[in-house]
Amino acid sequence: MRFQADPGAGRHAPSLPGFLVQEVVRRALAEDLVHAGDITTRAVVAASARARCEIVAKTEGILAGAQPAALTFELLGPDLGVRFHEADGAQVKAGDVVAVLEGAAQPILAAERTALNFLGHLSGVATATHRLVRAVEGTGAKITGTRKTTPGLRGLEKDAVRAGGGVNHRLSLDGAILIKDNHVAASGGVRRALLAARASRGPLTSIEIEVDTLDQLDEALAVGAEAILLDNMRPPELREAVRRAGGRARLEASGGITLESVREVAEAGVDFISSGWITHSAPALDFGLELRVQSPGPGRAG
Amino acid sequence: MRFQADPGAGRHAPSLPGFLVQEVVRRALAEDLVHAGDITTRAVVAASARARCEIVAKTEGILAGAQPAALTFELLGPDLGVRFHEADGAQVKAGDVVAVLEGAAQPILAAERTALNFLGHLSGVATATHRLVRAVEGTGAKITGTRKTTPGLRGLEKDAVRAGGGVNHRLSLDGAILIKDNHVAASGGVRRALLAARASRGPLTSIEIEVDTLDQLDEALAVGAEAILLDNMRPPELREAVRRAGGRARLEASGGITLESVREVAEAGVDFISSGWITHSAPALDFGLELRVQSPGPGRAG
Amino acid sequence: MRFQADPGAGRHAPSLPGFLVQEVVRRALAEDLVHAGDITTRAVVAASARARCEIVAKTEGILAGAQPAALTFELLGPDLGVRFHEADGAQVKAGDVVAVLEGAAQPILAAERTALNFLGHLSGVATATHRLVRAVEGTGAKITGTRKTTPGLRGLEKDAVRAGGGVNHRLSLDGAILIKDNHVAASGGVRRALLAARASRGPLTSIEIEVDTLDQLDEALAVGAEAILLDNMRPPELREAVRRAGGRARLEASGGITLESVREVAEAGVDFISSGWITHSAPALDFGLELRVQSPGPGRAG
Amino acid sequence: MRFQADPGAGRHAPSLPGFLVQEVVRRALAEDLVHAGDITTRAVVAASARARCEIVAKTEGILAGAQPAALTFELLGPDLGVRFHEADGAQVKAGDVVAVLEGAAQPILAAERTALNFLGHLSGVATATHRLVRAVEGTGAKITGTRKTTPGLRGLEKDAVRAGGGVNHRLSLDGAILIKDNHVAASGGVRRALLAARASRGPLTSIEIEVDTLDQLDEALAVGAEAILLDNMRPPELREAVRRAGGRARLEASGGITLESVREVAEAGVDFISSGWITHSAPALDFGLELRVQSPGPGRAG
Amino acid sequence: MRFQADPGAGRHAPSLPGFLVQEVVRRALAEDLVHAGDITTRAVVAASARARCEIVAKTEGILAGAQPAALTFELLGPDLGVRFHEADGAQVKAGDVVAVLEGAAQPILAAERTALNFLGHLSGVATATHRLVRAVEGTGAKITGTRKTTPGLRGLEKDAVRAGGGVNHRLSLDGAILIKDNHVAASGGVRRALLAARASRGPLTSIEIEVDTLDQLDEALAVGAEAILLDNMRPPELREAVRRAGGRARLEASGGITLESVREVAEAGVDFISSGWITHSAPALDFGLELRVQSPGPGRAG
Amino acid sequence: MRFQADPGAGRHAPSLPGFLVQEVVRRALAEDLVHAGDITTRAVVAASARARCEIVAKTEGILAGAQPAALTFELLGPDLGVRFHEADGAQVKAGDVVAVLEGAAQPILAAERTALNFLGHLSGVATATHRLVRAVEGTGAKITGTRKTTPGLRGLEKDAVRAGGGVNHRLSLDGAILIKDNHVAASGGVRRALLAARASRGPLTSIEIEVDTLDQLDEALAVGAEAILLDNMRPPELREAVRRAGGRARLEASGGITLESVREVAEAGVDFISSGWITHSAPALDFGLELRVQSPGPGRAG
Repeated sequence: MRFQADPGAGRHAPSLPGFLVQEVVRRALAEDLVHAGDITTRAVVAASARARCEIVAKTEGILAGAQPAALTFELLGPDLGVRFHEADGAQVKAGDVVAVLEGAAQPILAAERTALNFLGHLSGVATATHRLVRAVEGTGAKITGTRKTTPGLRGLEKDAVRAGGGVNHRLSLDGAILIKDNHVAASGGVRRALLAARASRGPLTSIEIEVDTLDQLDEALAVGAEAILLDNMRPPELREAVRRAGGRARLEASGGITLESVREVAEAGVDFISSGWITHSAPALDFGLELRVQSPGPGRAG
Repeated sequence: MRFQADPGAGRHAPSLPGFLVQEVVRRALAEDLVHAGDITTRAVVAASARARCEIVAKTEGILAGAQPAALTFELLGPDLGVRFHEADGAQVKAGDVVAVLEGAAQPILAAERTALNFLGHLSGVATATHRLVRAVEGTGAKITGTRKTTPGLRGLEKDAVRAGGGVNHRLSLDGAILIKDNHVAASGGVRRALLAARASRGPLTSIEIEVDTLDQLDEALAVGAEAILLDNMRPPELREAVRRAGGRARLEASGGITLESVREVAEAGVDFISSGWITHSAPALDFGLELRVQSPGPGRAG
Repeated sequence: MRFQADPGAGRHAPSLPGFLVQEVVRRALAEDLVHAGDITTRAVVAASARARCEIVAKTEGILAGAQPAALTFELLGPDLGVRFHEADGAQVKAGDVVAVLEGAAQPILAAERTALNFLGHLSGVATATHRLVRAVEGTGAKITGTRKTTPGLRGLEKDAVRAGGGVNHRLSLDGAILIKDNHVAASGGVRRALLAARASRGPLTSIEIEVDTLDQLDEALAVGAEAILLDNMRPPELREAVRRAGGRARLEASGGITLESVREVAEAGVDFISSGWITHSAPALDFGLELRVQSPGPGRAG
Repeated sequence: MRFQADPGAGRHAPSLPGFLVQEVVRRALAEDLVHAGDITTRAVVAASARARCEIVAKTEGILAGAQPAALTFELLGPDLGVRFHEADGAQVKAGDVVAVLEGAAQPILAAERTALNFLGHLSGVATATHRLVRAVEGTGAKITGTRKTTPGLRGLEKDAVRAGGGVNHRLSLDGAILIKDNHVAASGGVRRALLAARASRGPLTSIEIEVDTLDQLDEALAVGAEAILLDNMRPPELREAVRRAGGRARLEASGGITLESVREVAEAGVDFISSGWITHSAPALDFGLELRVQSPGPGRAG
Repeated sequence: MRFQADPGAGRHAPSLPGFLVQEVVRRALAEDLVHAGDITTRAVVAASARARCEIVAKTEGILAGAQPAALTFELLGPDLGVRFHEADGAQVKAGDVVAVLEGAAQPILAAERTALNFLGHLSGVATATHRLVRAVEGTGAKITGTRKTTPGLRGLEKDAVRAGGGVNHRLSLDGAILIKDNHVAASGGVRRALLAARASRGPLTSIEIEVDTLDQLDEALAVGAEAILLDNMRPPELREAVRRAGGRARLEASGGITLESVREVAEAGVDFISSGWITHSAPALDFGLELRVQSPGPGRAG
Repeated sequence: MRFQADPGAGRHAPSLPGFLVQEVVRRALAEDLVHAGDITTRAVVAASARARCEIVAKTEGILAGAQPAALTFELLGPDLGVRFHEADGAQVKAGDVVAVLEGAAQPILAAERTALNFLGHLSGVATATHRLVRAVEGTGAKITGTRKTTPGLRGLEKDAVRAGGGVNHRLSLDGAILIKDNHVAASGGVRRALLAARASRGPLTSIEIEVDTLDQLDEALAVGAEAILLDNMRPPELREAVRRAGGRARLEASGGITLESVREVAEAGVDFISSGWITHSAPALDFGLELRVQSPGPGRAG
């Protein structure tokens, strides 16, 4: 657990301690190594062979996942030199060397795929987030994710959203109260739902309610709702919602957000725009591991 | 673990036993429920309330993940009625009801997001696979995945590839020998690598070698390679490779496969076409949970 | 996982699903059974012996932990009849029978200690909470816990606090922002800390700040703090704090709360009173397992 | 796992290896950090900030839990300086500095609560034990615990009992045979139970039997019982029991032991006095983490 | 977890609860099924095919492991009929049908190897134990195992020793004090070691000391040792040791016990004879799964 | 995880990364240490005592398990000096010192049994394998294992087989297709089974079919089988099988292989000979830990 990201100004430091991320990395490596490890590398590459490899970005995007990727190499090769030149949140372009690995060739090759799987997936999430963030720049709206995350990767994906410049929504069902349409239906309306929610709250329990119409919005505002999710409203309706709220509640827009539509949504004046797409459908960013130098190792004649 | 998929003709039965899938489901649910579970539902929906809900497809695609989705509901509500109308591999279109849930409203609402996360992600993988499968229909080429899977979901994603009509490549690093370009470089060439690999093989160890040029292909064929991966070759080169191999080795094409290019690749005569995109970048299929009927439950006056 | 608490009016339903509680129960049972299980019972009680046992309260208090206790018996004896007469939150007095167990004697005796350990500890937490709740009855103040919980039992203890009539504070470090004195010191004051916190918030991120003086309170109110923790203030100071806040922020009193002092604190007008003592120092409630009827079992002559 | 307690004379060395304690610590930290870690500290304290903190005892007692507390800080901050001035078993008084932490401020603040939860709870157990130990000083009686431990903390609490000067009773149900009243009833009396137990014993299986009356005691002695638990006997009865046993069996008194009554029980001449209260109801010892020095870190201008 | 062994007279009931054994079974099945389960059976046997299979002993011996074997089938096929005709401890001979399985063919075939691995290994341990037990019949000596067990199978192997008619030695390092030669050397002799051990004992801590010579035996007896392990003594020396002890201590012989030598050792008059061979080197008992009846299943024409 | 085997020429390097082996080691140590660790050593050996110990082979054989044995000592004593003089695969004879341990006496003694359990069991597997390997030397036949491994030790035993000079068969049910007699029966014959298997294969899926008769062999060859398992055939039949195959398929002999019969089987000309006995019934190799030098430690007067 030697990985210590030291992000420069504006960069994003990983938010989970190494030992928690290591558990996810161990699980991923165990999936790939199972009973006998990398039987190919062991069969064809000498144990004494040494290598210098680079991880190279093949497309433009935002880096995320440097921590799990580094831990992957370190777990398989405790003596490897693993240096990331860029921290999460950094903008990379095709051809950029994001990390250098030096040491025994066998653990580098055995760890390659697992490390790149983390890097590609999480950088994909950060890149998708960042595209929305950039699109709304200057509007004051913040981009946030949802609980539509990949099973088993909640924490890492939430971190990648932050690396992309977003902020985090509720991290889990027990983190805050978010009253959605089904809850409203099942509890007899916006007002009753809000009052029931408040009766159960502790000093740090946040409450937000989803509304589908401006009437529901009014009902929520009337009871003093502090945060309101405007679901699937078009920009004109959103602007009217912002006007009616008049700063009395935090407003979040969600539903069908695309790179094309997001700016208009932001300009309607909402505080937050949430997107499930940035976690569940972001395409992976492409990285490759390139073998730069190799030697048969000290124990072998040339 | 009551979920028993009974797929009709041409459908895909889940290949992992319930108890193994349940571990992934438990981990996913634990991510969402953490310490106190669904505090929203508990605050605003009566414990006695009952509901009938439907899972509805919102876009067209291939279903996958019915097993983990069903197990999610069953773990939270052992008494729920959970019926999937469609099995993995089924073609669904927008508006199709794929499953019906009946019973206590609280566990249905608490399980909703986790179940849909499995369903959406895995159906996305199956759908992406199926698009390639359909594109090469009649050519004899099979679509296969890679080890570029999401950390923690190797088994489920490999199953989704099969649900989409693909076949599985190597499941893990210890499952077979696949000599890639870096291995060739590190071991002194195609011939030496192949001979070294064979020396270590047991009776069921498969060996495949990646070649980047037709010269390397010849070298591999000369040593009697049984499976050869043709990396990043364009269709004319692939056709020449197929001609030279003359049926002596299984041929796999990989690298930059797209929905547009895949048919031409298949028509070159290769046996397998592998794609990382179908697991690492397939967009999720969209499903919603719709509350159809609800009642406050037997213990309450209307 | 057959345990289904059906609490009457005013009772508390367990908030964690059985499968999550079962993990804690399994760990506890594994601690006690290790390699060979209950070697005493196996040596001296016939496998065919059957028993009817009662769990009896030995002192007055509030019941909590019925769910883990029931799961303990059910895990060791899937065929046992396990009926709790009282649900979490129920008031019990010395001599009350809270549960009846019927079936094979061996699993009942093997599970006894583990089940009572859960019941005693969690009822202790609920009882301590309830004493504070009762003491502030009518004042409008709510009793809440802290993160001073027993390692490994966060969720169950938080549930026991609710069973005792309290509400939950932040469940974990990532659940909300609570700026304490050390944070204020390390970040350059109340105002700067609050502004930094807000810059990072998502739509459902709650923020509370701890203040030690009325000056700090004013500073927090000036920036529009929504929740303020008044640390170690005496009632006169608390009253003044309530006056200055004037309903603009939720106020929480903490520090040195005792059964004697809590009412005066509540009457000062704060919204919440938090106590670490109810989780880290509550004495266990005393329960016993009493063997009422036993028979050598069908396979034996009298 | 750098924590190496080096207790002075009369001090108690932790008895579990670091890697086993670390598992309990990881679980506790995971409860608190969950998906995103300490979002407060990250939002308001610079990553480069450094601190020197002290853990200070706020009341008098016996220290225990130094090992899990130290491991907590080390897991979150592998580069922190963590020095405990006192080892488990040491007597501390209000104001004593028991440990000093130096290094990055963020991991210190994130680990604080979990570390103190271990320290407070386990020192509470050691302190309660020690009070009984001191009360019986000079009588020859030893204080021992029971299996009434907190679920999940069996090993650490047993260690804390030893730190407080007690000795350990049976650690688990499979560690020895202890025939209790329900067993006696279910097996047809003291004599039959003892004979059945002996028939199953191996060379290291200890056997103890609980008796409620002097008649039962005689019956046990007649069969040559080697250890006898005298349950709920008052001092006069205990003295008579000691007289009858005449050194032929180890005698243990249990039931309703209090700080007031324990000396008289010990003076009756029993060898062991067991108490459930020292583990299930000992109030936590109070410790605080005090920030002594802090600097914004090398990477920042003053 | 439906497996309920109901052993007849003289048979051995499994001593660990199903849920603990199930964890070992899950781990074993996960080793074999990994990501995609039984790809052979799925490829060549119809999902609807049903079968009736028998588990048949191929050599003579003592059955053990019926519980984990049954749980293996039940985990993979919750709807299978799994009936063991014989319980652990039963004598089987070549050709005996020990269990019958009925239901879907796929889970039976997928579970076969794992179930037989448990059955063969544990029956091997029971058989080896039983051979020693039978050899010493009538002498009063009991056969016991050691801590020389297979990593990960401590509990199941200890149970198999009991199924074979043996009794259990110390189950783990913390279960009792066993002072071996290295301890004696490191602590300054038999007497000092025994006194140090006693100072730390609780009411149920057993103490045994290993002696290599009759002088050491005398030293141990002089201090009142209650159990003494006579290491590597030949029968004449053992007889002398028994004479000197004169019933004052339990005596155990160990070291180089063979089927040929064990009776003479027993006749020397020791109470226990321990053997590592019965756990670490017992050959597996041979069982086969035989397919008796099969049908393509209800969903298929013949 | 400092263990770094550096095998000389012809030696076997461990194939699993330390972190995966460590999990098996942790589980084994936890079995032995449970709640309180080595209570004997703690009671009678000073914490400051230091020792130099040697692991000595007591019989001749092939070493395996050096990695888990070394990790056992390192986990309990992170500061111990642990040096293996021999790597897996080395031939050892009685009296050979295979490893030296230096440092604190307590962790060495506490780890001893667990470390030797790994070493003895795995060296037993390697030795049994090697005996078969040596017996077939010069014939071209390779020795391979089966899936008849000890539950929980699949990977380590497969590695020990390689250390003994064998090659690995299928590692798990999802690693390759092996059509056995029951599959043939259930699928309608050799030809149909092979065709069904091929329809499901990916580019790296190996297929082997078991045949019991020469007629089945012909049927398999006619469909172009690439690997054929000749079950329970006697040498004359095997020779005929080899003749008929004429190099068109890899041939494996299995069933009733003994040290006496194996050479004749090999000379029949098969490519592989598989044996279950080398994993499920190999007797453990005997190793002892001998205390060479000990001192009371720096903190004590002589």
